[in-house]
Amino acid sequence: MAQARIGLIGLGTMGAALALNIAEKGFPIAVWNRTTAVTRGFAAAAGPLAAHVIATETLAELVAAIAPPRAIILMVPAGQAVDDQLAALAPLLDADDLVIDAGNADFHDTNRRDASGLPFRFLGMGVSGGEEGARHGPAIMGGGDAADWDRVADVMTAIAARAEDGTPCAARMGDAGAGHFVKMVHNGIEYADMQMIAEVYGLMRDGMGMDAAAISSAFAGWNEGALQSYLIEISARVTAAADPHTGRPMVDVILDRAGQKGTGRWTAIEAQHLSAPIPVIEAAVMARNVSSRLDERLAGEARFGPAPQPIRIAPQTLEQALIAGKILCYAQGFAMISAASQRFGWTLDLPGIARVWRAGCIIRSAMLNDMAAALAEDPARNLVLAPFFASLIESALPGLRQVVAEGAAQGHALPALASGLMWFDLMRTGRGTANLIQAQRDFFGAHGFQRIDGLDDPHGPWGQSA
Amino acid sequence: MAQARIGLIGLGTMGAALALNIAEKGFPIAVWNRTTAVTRGFAAAAGPLAAHVIATETLAELVAAIAPPRAIILMVPAGQAVDDQLAALAPLLDADDLVIDAGNADFHDTNRRDASGLPFRFLGMGVSGGEEGARHGPAIMGGGDAADWDRVADVMTAIAARAEDGTPCAARMGDAGAGHFVKMVHNGIEYADMQMIAEVYGLMRDGMGMDAAAISSAFAGWNEGALQSYLIEISARVTAAADPHTGRPMVDVILDRAGQKGTGRWTAIEAQHLSAPIPVIEAAVMARNVSSRLDERLAGEARFGPAPQPIRIAPQTLEQALIAGKILCYAQGFAMISAASQRFGWTLDLPGIARVWRAGCIIRSAMLNDMAAALAEDPARNLVLAPFFASLIESALPGLRQVVAEGAAQGHALPALASGLMWFDLMRTGRGTANLIQAQRDFFGAHGFQRIDGLDDPHGPWGQSA
Repeated sequence: MAQARIGLIGLGTMGAALALNIAEKGFPIAVWNRTTAVTRGFAAAAGPLAAHVIATETLAELVAAIAPPRAIILMVPAGQAVDDQLAALAPLLDADDLVIDAGNADFHDTNRRDASGLPFRFLGMGVSGGEEGARHGPAIMGGGDAADWDRVADVMTAIAARAEDGTPCAARMGDAGAGHFVKMVHNGIEYADMQMIAEVYGLMRDGMGMDAAAISSAFAGWNEGALQSYLIEISARVTAAADPHTGRPMVDVILDRAGQKGTGRWTAIEAQHLSAPIPVIEAAVMARNVSSRLDERLAGEARFGPAPQPIRIAPQTLEQALIAGKILCYAQGFAMISAASQRFGWTLDLPGIARVWRAGCIIRSAMLNDMAAALAEDPARNLVLAPFFASLIESALPGLRQVVAEGAAQGHALPALASGLMWFDLMRTGRGTANLIQAQRDFFGAHGFQRIDGLDDPHGPWGQSA
Repeated sequence: MAQARIGLIGLGTMGAALALNIAEKGFPIAVWNRTTAVTRGFAAAAGPLAAHVIATETLAELVAAIAPPRAIILMVPAGQAVDDQLAALAPLLDADDLVIDAGNADFHDTNRRDASGLPFRFLGMGVSGGEEGARHGPAIMGGGDAADWDRVADVMTAIAARAEDGTPCAARMGDAGAGHFVKMVHNGIEYADMQMIAEVYGLMRDGMGMDAAAISSAFAGWNEGALQSYLIEISARVTAAADPHTGRPMVDVILDRAGQKGTGRWTAIEAQHLSAPIPVIEAAVMARNVSSRLDERLAGEARFGPAPQPIRIAPQTLEQALIAGKILCYAQGFAMISAASQRFGWTLDLPGIARVWRAGCIIRSAMLNDMAAALAEDPARNLVLAPFFASLIESALPGLRQVVAEGAAQGHALPALASGLMWFDLMRTGRGTANLIQAQRDFFGAHGFQRIDGLDDPHGPWGQSA
């Protein structure tokens, strides 16, 4: 009976897709869902892949169906459900069995679970790519002991997406929560990429009077160049789609109120803990928050409208702005990963992360090839200083400057693009303005400062201070 | 022996200043410090105020010296030291004695302590104004039961700063952690105010070629107008000061590397939890983080320099930009407080908070008078929509637009001012660009969307999605 190579718990959208992917690659898989009807429905719908699927109706049956030492993937909602499932498995598993949390866990929870003395082996694993990715090839970011990862690496590399050069997009990132951490930053970057695209979309729609079809063509054109990526590709597709009810462009009848499941926010919070500046991601989270306040925006327009004014910018310049913004955003994201690696002692492989993101996941793009190469040259150097990207920024920057300047002047909200530019101008200014802040802090709080000449006199001659 | 009106534990800079303030107002105060020499030194230096001070050498002595029911102010470092001190006091106090944590506590800790079943009454209290404020009149933000606050309100209002109209800047904000929460947001706004001033300083120094004396004059002039505030006043003073070693302007020899004690970061993290957009504060925290990375900035300048270019902006325009930026920042801060009030069930008094900030604290300013009045009209309305401030923004906004546009074009880093403007343009745009984001999310994740026409068809006609 114990013939399955691996088990899987949780046959929701993502779990079912992942199970079919595994079966399709020829690995016998035992599956179980809390609701037996779901398990039966899954098996019934598996078609020819059913030959590799063992549908089980109790947790004990599931465990018995897997060849020891066992490996079981959990794909249940993040949070308490994971803890509950781990507790339910505890009496059924042997010490060398392995449970893999492939859900969308907060990496702090993964660290906690890893340190909680579970009576079996444990991996945390970030899986990106949505349902399609899970079914046909996701990006997989593992966290835990290398020996545990190695036990399932054959399955994970078989089911993962493949980069153009054939490399599977599955790798162990580091210990315990490292996989879920990298997946979290991936999602933060996804927010930022989407926001920057939306900002440029707004410039075309509201500033340049382009209709959805023209905007779609612009995106499609950019997808042939440096911006080639899944998100630009689908931007071209969604702007081309027509609403079946009205015949209007589909995007024109969608309400401008963006939802979020929280991983962008997690990224922003964690960056604060790490003192890692990720202003483009912060701006993207902010923009989603503001988008949800429709009543306030309508009141704002009533008082301060009409909103954006026409702009004079060439589409080519918009493309340059997006290229620059994208590089700046990824530079911030990789620097945050680097900070986490140091803080948590993970020795994360930055070029390896860029390689894993090249296919399968939402932020997959051609540029990640070059980022992997640039990070491999010197992972400790900020990406904007890598020669390849420094040159690219230099050529794209005038476009970003023009777009932000014109947007600011004409009332277009470009929070992500502007934040990227402002961060860049901060980090390329050897003599900044924080000397004034240090003077103020010393004046009112005697906080002290350093001097540029190294003299050891850390306080100002302010006299009476209030 | 039990003759003190109140006790105080912790005679560091802030504790000593607060104790002298209390003694000066005629309240007999018993003091104790873990190191007896510090207590003795304090008493010896108290001069004529020593008549009101009872210096004690054990905790039991301190408790015995205070008239029951007792009130004791804790002014010890935030964190474990507070918990330790509460534990040490537990066996010595009666159930109706009151302990007031006046340190810089994380409001979550204050909530936790309040709910932890302490065997005495407990208040959390934010005190702002630095040493000078504590000595001569701070702003005081209390949190806890109203009955407990009322027991010490006479002392707190006596020692607090007074607004121009004579109102003491001391009030109970709400339950438990509410006082420390409001103090935290105060500090976040302080970061933002300082950053915006520093940005304008940079434009004058690097873009307009003004020397420190000319910059000081500009600040001094602005301090006569709508920007009248402590931070503008001290900006004028610190830019006027000369370095005793070199004779150069003091600010010119201070290293541009700003420190932080973490309350700005706490504010940013809490805003994320509340989904409250505070991009100006986020930008200020970000700028301090980048300022500390001097090596990276020097490498950035070497590759992408020279840094900022000359700009053509009238000083009057800079003033307008600061006025607009300040209003936008405070609007975000008050909206965050409003969100917290709802989330935590605090029923915070927004105009009351503006009134408490009018004097004593670092962000005290003339504008807070008008903010208090505007918030009193309708606390639920965003401050930018209050008629007085809407008009002020309207007149100041062209200045902010010009400054951000010119800064972006010429390479000046203005993250806080730009973030304020971008937030404003988001929140005054009735039809934003999040419709594209919703289309993308539905395409790759079937997240669904709302339609502008209310039709119930939450998914797009995307066809095959990858």
